[in-house]
Amino acid sequence: MIIRGFKTAAVAAGIKSDGMLDLALICSETPAVAAAVFTQNFFIAAPLILTRRHLTASGHQVRAVLVNSGNANAATGEAGIHAAQECVEALARGLACDPRDVLVSSTGVIGRPLPVSRIQTAIPDLISNLSPTNIDLLARAIMTTDTVPKIATAEVGGARITGVAKGAGMIHPDMATMLSFVMTDAAVTHPELDAALRYAVHHSFNCISVDGDTSTNDMVVVLANGASGIHPPAGDFREKLREVCTELATAIVRDGEGATKFVELNIEGAPSDEAARTIGRTIARSPLVKTAIYGADPNWGRIVGAIGNSGVPLSSDRVDIYIGGVPISEKTLDMTRQKLKEREIQIRVVLHSGSGVARIWTCDLTDGYIRINADYTT
Amino acid sequence: MIIRGFKTAAVAAGIKSDGMLDLALICSETPAVAAAVFTQNFFIAAPLILTRRHLTASGHQVRAVLVNSGNANAATGEAGIHAAQECVEALARGLACDPRDVLVSSTGVIGRPLPVSRIQTAIPDLISNLSPTNIDLLARAIMTTDTVPKIATAEVGGARITGVAKGAGMIHPDMATMLSFVMTDAAVTHPELDAALRYAVHHSFNCISVDGDTSTNDMVVVLANGASGIHPPAGDFREKLREVCTELATAIVRDGEGATKFVELNIEGAPSDEAARTIGRTIARSPLVKTAIYGADPNWGRIVGAIGNSGVPLSSDRVDIYIGGVPISEKTLDMTRQKLKEREIQIRVVLHSGSGVARIWTCDLTDGYIRINADYTT
Repeated sequence: MIIRGFKTAAVAAGIKSDGMLDLALICSETPAVAAAVFTQNFFIAAPLILTRRHLTASGHQVRAVLVNSGNANAATGEAGIHAAQECVEALARGLACDPRDVLVSSTGVIGRPLPVSRIQTAIPDLISNLSPTNIDLLARAIMTTDTVPKIATAEVGGARITGVAKGAGMIHPDMATMLSFVMTDAAVTHPELDAALRYAVHHSFNCISVDGDTSTNDMVVVLANGASGIHPPAGDFREKLREVCTELATAIVRDGEGATKFVELNIEGAPSDEAARTIGRTIARSPLVKTAIYGADPNWGRIVGAIGNSGVPLSSDRVDIYIGGVPISEKTLDMTRQKLKEREIQIRVVLHSGSGVARIWTCDLTDGYIRINADYTT
Repeated sequence: MIIRGFKTAAVAAGIKSDGMLDLALICSETPAVAAAVFTQNFFIAAPLILTRRHLTASGHQVRAVLVNSGNANAATGEAGIHAAQECVEALARGLACDPRDVLVSSTGVIGRPLPVSRIQTAIPDLISNLSPTNIDLLARAIMTTDTVPKIATAEVGGARITGVAKGAGMIHPDMATMLSFVMTDAAVTHPELDAALRYAVHHSFNCISVDGDTSTNDMVVVLANGASGIHPPAGDFREKLREVCTELATAIVRDGEGATKFVELNIEGAPSDEAARTIGRTIARSPLVKTAIYGADPNWGRIVGAIGNSGVPLSSDRVDIYIGGVPISEKTLDMTRQKLKEREIQIRVVLHSGSGVARIWTCDLTDGYIRINADYTT
């Protein structure tokens, strides 16, 4: 789907050693309203520091986002910020815009100097490749351990929304190693866009967990250039943005490193929605629960153990657990074992301690995850 | 080492289906002062509820501890408490003591009814097997996924301390699936014993992490019967108890499910000792750090990511990391990779944000862990 007024491009700049696409550009013909959310990790990578500055300096009106994979430009200190700045300046010259109208994002190995001259050398090529139909290349260029590109689209009253995301490991609520860029040609104000993004991320990217780790580089950026001339109702826009973000977030979980199963956890009857969320995240992060799902083992004691480990006080010690709709008990072990053999698994936890609910997505923990992560950098 | 006035025994009662030892008894000839610490999990198993009651009812003066493996008697409700009570009463009749002078502990699968009649049937055999030299059998009878029995001993001014422990997975600070029983013939008061146990556990069992999960059944119990007639200075006793607990705790980590490496993390320069502890635990729990150690990959960005993920605010963003004494940098990757290939690894993290320190022990995360946990119950 073409998002009016936006073009994208991707090239292989030699940042990755294997010659794959590793540098991408999102460009709006006119200044686009921009909103972003960032990692909660204490250590924030250089590109995030620069992007935050530019969002403020530009009054949340930007022209472009420059993204590279293969190098996170994280834990690189002042030199890293300077390196990101040099890349942004080279791009701004090429696009004839103010450097402050350019956002920048990086993903890959932490602690290595960004290869600035390779990026600068590739920028003319990147700009000349800009096209309204290159979204698939953009999605591919931001991949690291991802096995599939992730794209989602929606329409709202004639305006269009398209997003891409990357992420497969180091994924946990509050923005783990995860990037997502969303473009819309809807006409929305910055406060509307910001509120819609926070709502959408709360119910999508912040509800997924692959391994409980978070990273220094995560961000979700949404750009709205108004090129459709359509100003959809704020509630409608917010819901459609949530749909796009949810599709991207669940695509990340489905592509979880080494994952063989996709799990939707529904927590009900918690003291509050926030408590339900905490419990859901604790279950989603438990290696014992995740390996039991991998082994199709209805070892529900591990789910009970994880709930008790969440730190949430409950008013009842009664817990009902359903796997694929089947209430789990010593009598239903065979049925629930069958349900756990499916690729998509629904787990419902009813806590009898209030009316709080949450929906969390996760995957199983497998020897594939170990193999991928035991040998990544070098 | 014989602990004067104590006898132990272990039998195969048929709780485990494979005919292995699964029921054990610790017995003091005279009432012993008892102190205990329990899991922080919200869901507390039946034997822990009963043990707490009996500690209070007996005025912390007990005669025996009955332990079974193969069944956790957890998530079994009132029926579970009643089942534990029936076993304790059968034992008290056999020992001719008050049931309130008996503590009880269970480990194994959660959510299955305790096979009370098998335990009751085995009790006469258990009592007739009591011997001062059976400690190795006690250590074996409490094993589940453990591969080796865990025993540690110390002397303090002529008095003796011996402890056993079990635990291999579901291990994280604040008492995970982990049991430990310590006997001493030192003469100590209950307040002394309780304070010494809390001190020892804080610096030993609560400093280890295998997988970040905690369980419903964990407890550490220490019994002091005074049979040596020796009352060691409180400070000396406390340190020796810490030594025994540390030896047992590190033995648990060395036996971590699927673990191939033992890791000692030293955190320095944190805002406080508590902050250092939180950071150490977060690193110890990170699947990305643990798989990198498995792969002997000096991917220090993952350690930085985990520190930033701990929620502890630091006053400096400077982090120095040493592996086996070698400061890690792009120039020392080959040396640190060699250090990571050893079976015992020292990681030192210096944070430049204060004078808080902590020492935490953990292990690597391997495909062995996945295999063990993907198929445990059934």
